[in-house]
Amino acid sequence: MTARTKGSVRIIGAGLLGTSIGLALRKHDIDVIVEDASPAVQALAIDYGAGRAPRESDDPAIIIVCVPPDVTAIVIERELKAFPRAVVTDVASVKSQILNSLESSNSLLENYVGSHPMAGREKGGAISGRADLFVGRPWIISATARTSAAASTAIENLALDLGASPVSLTASEHDRAVALVSHLPQIISSILAARLVEGEDKEIALAGQGLRDTTRIAASDPKLWLQILSANSNELRGLLEAFSADLDSVISALADVSASGSLAKLSKALESGNRGVERIPGKHGTKATEYAQVIVMIDDRPGELARLLTEVGEIGINLEELKLEHSPSALIGLVELSVIPSAESKLIDDLTSRGWRLAG
Amino acid sequence: MTARTKGSVRIIGAGLLGTSIGLALRKHDIDVIVEDASPAVQALAIDYGAGRAPRESDDPAIIIVCVPPDVTAIVIERELKAFPRAVVTDVASVKSQILNSLESSNSLLENYVGSHPMAGREKGGAISGRADLFVGRPWIISATARTSAAASTAIENLALDLGASPVSLTASEHDRAVALVSHLPQIISSILAARLVEGEDKEIALAGQGLRDTTRIAASDPKLWLQILSANSNELRGLLEAFSADLDSVISALADVSASGSLAKLSKALESGNRGVERIPGKHGTKATEYAQVIVMIDDRPGELARLLTEVGEIGINLEELKLEHSPSALIGLVELSVIPSAESKLIDDLTSRGWRLAG
Repeated sequence: MTARTKGSVRIIGAGLLGTSIGLALRKHDIDVIVEDASPAVQALAIDYGAGRAPRESDDPAIIIVCVPPDVTAIVIERELKAFPRAVVTDVASVKSQILNSLESSNSLLENYVGSHPMAGREKGGAISGRADLFVGRPWIISATARTSAAASTAIENLALDLGASPVSLTASEHDRAVALVSHLPQIISSILAARLVEGEDKEIALAGQGLRDTTRIAASDPKLWLQILSANSNELRGLLEAFSADLDSVISALADVSASGSLAKLSKALESGNRGVERIPGKHGTKATEYAQVIVMIDDRPGELARLLTEVGEIGINLEELKLEHSPSALIGLVELSVIPSAESKLIDDLTSRGWRLAG
Repeated sequence: MTARTKGSVRIIGAGLLGTSIGLALRKHDIDVIVEDASPAVQALAIDYGAGRAPRESDDPAIIIVCVPPDVTAIVIERELKAFPRAVVTDVASVKSQILNSLESSNSLLENYVGSHPMAGREKGGAISGRADLFVGRPWIISATARTSAAASTAIENLALDLGASPVSLTASEHDRAVALVSHLPQIISSILAARLVEGEDKEIALAGQGLRDTTRIAASDPKLWLQILSANSNELRGLLEAFSADLDSVISALADVSASGSLAKLSKALESGNRGVERIPGKHGTKATEYAQVIVMIDDRPGELARLLTEVGEIGINLEELKLEHSPSALIGLVELSVIPSAESKLIDDLTSRGWRLAG
């Protein structure tokens, strides 16, 4: 596939997003420049294959600012001045505050278009970067009346080159939407997980998938989220006030479940939850890449996993991901092999004929 | 594996749990009797392989009551009278209310021991039943001072036969624990998902994995959960009040993020979430943090992972868990090796001296 993006791309900030963008663009043989305020982080991202170090002669066509939200506007301004021919975008999770800050400066805003790739992981850093992070994910582009058509098109093409789906929203439409689908679940998950701090070990030992799923994102980076939540405080606050009103209604119902109306209040909360979750579109396209999983049961003795992987190599199939789950007391381990879907049936057939036991 | 459970097992209620128990016991060739108030549901579960229909001559050793919580106590009482030689248990999610109700009756409580398998799915019904539903999951057994030792042992053996891990908790310890790890995440997930009812389609279309995970259990059956939450209202209310206090603190901080103390309040909420989620043990009941993680960077060419594992075997260290993260275009893959902490420094030293590159 030929890249739509022409010229060099300069990435400032080699965290999860910057590194992932670099890895994906390098697949298209695009010249990628990676700069990070930390020389060690910059070197790691370059080692990892995300691009090359900056040179004096650099003349980037596109600059992507992937630094923390609180310094994003400053870096955008600096880059617009340093490279007046380049289109500049950023990937920050809140758009209005940055736009307000840029508009109050004297920047050449025809070359700037804000964007926000709706992709991430709980773990940040260059080392978590992956080229397929944006595949099938929305990439919001927030052009203003001052943005040139060429700038918008360049960032749209960039998103398409990364496998993302460009979505046009104004900065305020964007901030309202992410308050609902991203910032609200984040802070609720954090407050929920905080209840576990005081729990007893024997209680928490009973945790099942429901608790794990509802608190997974509570493991996210507090420093980053502090910036995101405070930058979008107005939109988020309204949603939290509505949440609080529903919560108060449930608490009052629980105070006396036999009182008239109490069961109706509880029932309404549960049924509204049903209706809300039904509105989320199907899973299609949500995973970075859809792999097929083959689960192999291996005996719990040294060398078995190495033997399995040697044989997978002999079969000639590339592993995309591998996960070993090994219960200390179990007699077998479960190895989850992820492969591209077209390789699944060959892998199953060949492993079976070689005597491996498959599960699931 | 020989079953520990002796004699016939009678299951009342062929929903998800009743059917799953029947399927698992039938794998051990145990005689399983399935009864459901609905002849159609009973026939479905029997067709599905969960057991056989009741007969006049039935003389069960164990009776498992798997009916909705609000009728559980009534059915337990009836079964204790009808089969005075049988050990009777139930699987309801709240234990104190049932126990109080039985104690106020004149039942022979030496033959009764409450239990609660901590396993489930959002989808209920016989058709969702699966024999491996309980494997590796806690099975709480709530004996009282009146419960006979034989009754407790019988239900412990039953749990072991189903692959579950028996855990002894009093009814009130149980109810307190499940309020925290199950009932609280359920109602919070419902209230969170309810916010989506008023959202615009184009907003909800941006939903990512975080929103999906935090709202997944909001799809659960409102009728069942109405019974569970109202039966455990006291324990749950205290947790929701603490949640509400944290939520109010966040809302007040968002009202004026520049006010003194606002960022500290937000930061505290996010950091407490981090600390809470860290307390959840790994999938097999051991804390993920009890293992040491060593991350090895391997070249992206066939055979490298097998070579690494062979060398780990030569070093003589047991792998507890292994995770490979492989970004399709990255030049290297990251292999996360989990080992017992005392083996960590030897593993690092030996791998380094053998020329492997370690990260993180």
